[in-house]
Amino acid sequence: MLFADRLALAVRESGSITCVGLDPRKAQLPAPLRDSVVNDSADEWAAAYTQFCTEIIDVVVGKVACVKPQAAFFEQLGPAGMVALGQVIQYAKKAGLLVITDGKRNDIGSTATAYADGYLGENSPWGSDSLTVSPYLGEDSLTPFVEMCDKRAAGIFVLVKTSNPGGGLLQDRLTEGQTVYQRVAELVTEFNSSRLGESGYGPVGTVVGATYPEQLAKLRQAMPGSWILVPGFGAQGGGAADVLVGLDEDGLGAVVNSSRHIIFAHARDEYRQRLGDARWQDAVAEATSAMNAQLSR
Amino acid sequence: MLFADRLALAVRESGSITCVGLDPRKAQLPAPLRDSVVNDSADEWAAAYTQFCTEIIDVVVGKVACVKPQAAFFEQLGPAGMVALGQVIQYAKKAGLLVITDGKRNDIGSTATAYADGYLGENSPWGSDSLTVSPYLGEDSLTPFVEMCDKRAAGIFVLVKTSNPGGGLLQDRLTEGQTVYQRVAELVTEFNSSRLGESGYGPVGTVVGATYPEQLAKLRQAMPGSWILVPGFGAQGGGAADVLVGLDEDGLGAVVNSSRHIIFAHARDEYRQRLGDARWQDAVAEATSAMNAQLSR
Repeated sequence: MLFADRLALAVRESGSITCVGLDPRKAQLPAPLRDSVVNDSADEWAAAYTQFCTEIIDVVVGKVACVKPQAAFFEQLGPAGMVALGQVIQYAKKAGLLVITDGKRNDIGSTATAYADGYLGENSPWGSDSLTVSPYLGEDSLTPFVEMCDKRAAGIFVLVKTSNPGGGLLQDRLTEGQTVYQRVAELVTEFNSSRLGESGYGPVGTVVGATYPEQLAKLRQAMPGSWILVPGFGAQGGGAADVLVGLDEDGLGAVVNSSRHIIFAHARDEYRQRLGDARWQDAVAEATSAMNAQLSR
Repeated sequence: MLFADRLALAVRESGSITCVGLDPRKAQLPAPLRDSVVNDSADEWAAAYTQFCTEIIDVVVGKVACVKPQAAFFEQLGPAGMVALGQVIQYAKKAGLLVITDGKRNDIGSTATAYADGYLGENSPWGSDSLTVSPYLGEDSLTPFVEMCDKRAAGIFVLVKTSNPGGGLLQDRLTEGQTVYQRVAELVTEFNSSRLGESGYGPVGTVVGATYPEQLAKLRQAMPGSWILVPGFGAQGGGAADVLVGLDEDGLGAVVNSSRHIIFAHARDEYRQRLGDARWQDAVAEATSAMNAQLSR
């Protein structure tokens, strides 16, 4: 089944548009996992990251649409962290969860092909369902990723309008009535036009931040064939009303990411006293349910 | 010593502005290295990549300004490839060569910090001198990298005007007399202004393709404090005259990358019959000398 259709199915079956961001960070891991690291070695931290993420997966499977491991935090540990990333992706897939690997990779020509093959290819050491991709290098830098999507029924998510305050510096620049991010959106629509699945969506998803709800609503109209990954919900300030405008009439077309608010829920005021580090998995479960409730219409 | 000053020293001491791109690819490795892979395992290929790159380093050390391993090709092999990337970086540094890791990484906030720490930080598993970075996410996505440069006397190279035909799609868009890539150049100049070393250059380098010599010449003027990494020489069609406009009056300020033309020189018409796969290292040596000669004024 095509990636876009698998994502539609995952949203329907889970009844959730939540994407759980798997962003392990040493300092914020629950105490039991931090304490398991005795010698401060990369291998130990990598094992702690794997355990943290796989336990989260156990908690959220069936309750969310997908998970999004953030490559940077695994990569920060070095090769041992990359092993952990592969383990987490494989664990999530076996559990039946779709995986968006957040790497924001990009390059030109055969180098882009190497990234596409590396993360999405037949013998991929990571074997992700999809990958986030940066568009600065233009359409020919995206083509190798799109071709890999065709070959492997995979997906990509191209950065369009990001959630950070500085994102507008380049993305909002207006040329003949069209911003840079709108030009990227147009390109994505072109890529998808001949590749739409039964769900009405194509393999080229996009990233549009929850912190820009007006733009999100317009982009939903402008890119009818693109799944939108919406970061910035919760910790970054976007609310439910801000993100629901990313959905189509059938409640499809967008997944909303939350990382810190869910995975480090044990440290939030709502859960710290009652659950705390010892019952961090319960905090993840409650925070996931709370987010699903917020996002259900 | 600051990264920019170390690069100036490397150019002066080697008498070369050549940067050798370390882009190992399975199919193009010289036969002796391809033949060393018996079981087609990632570990074997990673070992072959390490041997290939370290032998190239042995050949070019003292004759070139720096080397640029391309993360994508190592990453394509999975964690084993990332181990090889670390080995290659360490080998080059011990040999006295400056290393630009070509990862085109970027993200926002603390995630960008994780990348910066991962590749340039104190306990970096890769320990590179510098990293290529993509600017689509704006200034606040670059700040964590610049701060890591300050902390570690490291460098980054921000994509400005890339060598591929599709690069113009976003980069050339004109808003109130300024293109997107000129806006990035301006931002780079701001970052460097308070960070210039004795060489007159700062830690925030840029990537400007050899395939756009007019823009390269103008960018040289517009970004007096930025080292320019110039890809696209040789295999991608840029000639010597096209890239020399990237230099300042002292012959500093730009390094010119060549990957395939040097590392796979054994397969080029000039060297194939006489040297071929068996003497691929000699082909690398001759191709390096030839490129240095082309670029010497």
